Amino acid sequence: MLEDYAMQCLSCEEDYSLGHAGTCEECYKEANETKEELKTEIDALKAKVAFLSLLSPVDNHNPSDTDVILVPSDESSDLPSLTVPAHKVVLASRSPVFRAMLENDMEERRSGTIKISGVSYDALRAFVDYLYTAEACLDDQMACDLLVLAEKYQVKHLKACCEKYLMARLNWEKAVANYAFAHQYNAKQLHDAALALITDNMDRLSKHEEYEDLVESNPRIVVEIYEAYVSKQVNTAASKKSSNKNSKKA
Amino acid sequence: MLEDYAMQCLSCEEDYSLGHAGTCEECYKEANETKEELKTEIDALKAKVAFLSLLSPVDNHNPSDTDVILVPSDESSDLPSLTVPAHKVVLASRSPVFRAMLENDMEERRSGTIKISGVSYDALRAFVDYLYTAEACLDDQMACDLLVLAEKYQVKHLKACCEKYLMARLNWEKAVANYAFAHQYNAKQLHDAALALITDNMDRLSKHEEYEDLVESNPRIVVEIYEAYVSKQVNTAASKKSSNKNSKKA
Repeated sequence: MLEDYAMQCLSCEEDYSLGHAGTCEECYKEANETKEELKTEIDALKAKVAFLSLLSPVDNHNPSDTDVILVPSDESSDLPSLTVPAHKVVLASRSPVFRAMLENDMEERRSGTIKISGVSYDALRAFVDYLYTAEACLDDQMACDLLVLAEKYQVKHLKACCEKYLMARLNWEKAVANYAFAHQYNAKQLHDAALALITDNMDRLSKHEEYEDLVESNPRIVVEIYEAYVSKQVNTAASKKSSNKNSKKA
Repeated sequence: MLEDYAMQCLSCEEDYSLGHAGTCEECYKEANETKEELKTEIDALKAKVAFLSLLSPVDNHNPSDTDVILVPSDESSDLPSLTVPAHKVVLASRSPVFRAMLENDMEERRSGTIKISGVSYDALRAFVDYLYTAEACLDDQMACDLLVLAEKYQVKHLKACCEKYLMARLNWEKAVANYAFAHQYNAKQLHDAALALITDNMDRLSKHEEYEDLVESNPRIVVEIYEAYVSKQVNTAASKKSSNKNSKKA
């Protein structure tokens, strides 16, 4: 039998038969070279990231004078706020909203103080740190807090980072809250992922712990869930019908 | 003949025979996945680089106030210098030398002026631009000018970038000048590459356009060329001898 002629794979070095053949020798070598080139590119980019990363004033690592103060105002706390020092050049480089504030002769530019409402000191600190280093230590709460700030100040890179974090941890328990949250803060990918998870489990929706609250607080977006579900059913029915037709023809 | 059984390569889709087999199907699929993962990582790193890149004050793109002035003093010019504005936070983040200057209560910190000798305005401008963006538009002269600044202010990433540029364009005409330059500014890789090129062409060395000048200006490093050449000859002779011995034994 032809199948009995074993060749040795150049990669895993195991024997394989004709029926399990992958590539020719040349393509294997080329693929290896490409892989090495990609790895070299990754190393170069990592070095560039390390070079471009700034010393964050948050940890007092930064010897140079800061020229702007961010003041968190968390409504839930009566204590006087701790403030976060920063540099205008960094804020302006990372966020078009800060840039507009600091470019034009606005109150913030004159006073050197930017008030940021509805945010805790810890979240603001992490936000500023990210603007300097592109690094953040996330948990669910921090990812949400930073996504809100990223949306408000149009820091796309941070928003994408938080959205990715939340999507990776999305499950049925979190689906309704994440759906409402993503809706409010314009997080398209998280919104779509949460909505898909909900419409795949419609039989459980009305029993979901957060369902009643959402119907109370934001019935409009509950309607959107049902609309999405119905539209999905219609699409599924239509595609079944057309595949039935095709199989009858054949 | 076994060689006649053709398989189709899953990558290039050409037929190949047993003698030119590369990998099994599984390894091909795995390699493809790895490649996709590496590409995803590259995209993520590129986005991070774009995020971390700063608005350079050199092109007046930057609305925020600069807090330090760099003054080039090029001995070859009597004209008053143009100056380059910058931000202490950026200089301190990119260079340990600037950081020490600005951290301690030194003249530069107090005055907000850093004098940089032996450099043209254009080179200083490109240097500062690189500190903000990690990008430089190089030619041979600019690569040398920036390497000198990178060495002086210990900006390793820029130094490596210039060295790589010069190494890629190294040839016999430039070998002696590059060797002397690399020696002076501690550019190890360029030094070794230039030295290897020279010792591979020792018969032409004394006729090289820049040889006599180097003997005049820096005989010590010409001696090093000869020492390297002799040491290479000794090594070659020794390895020939040992391979002769081995072949006689066999």
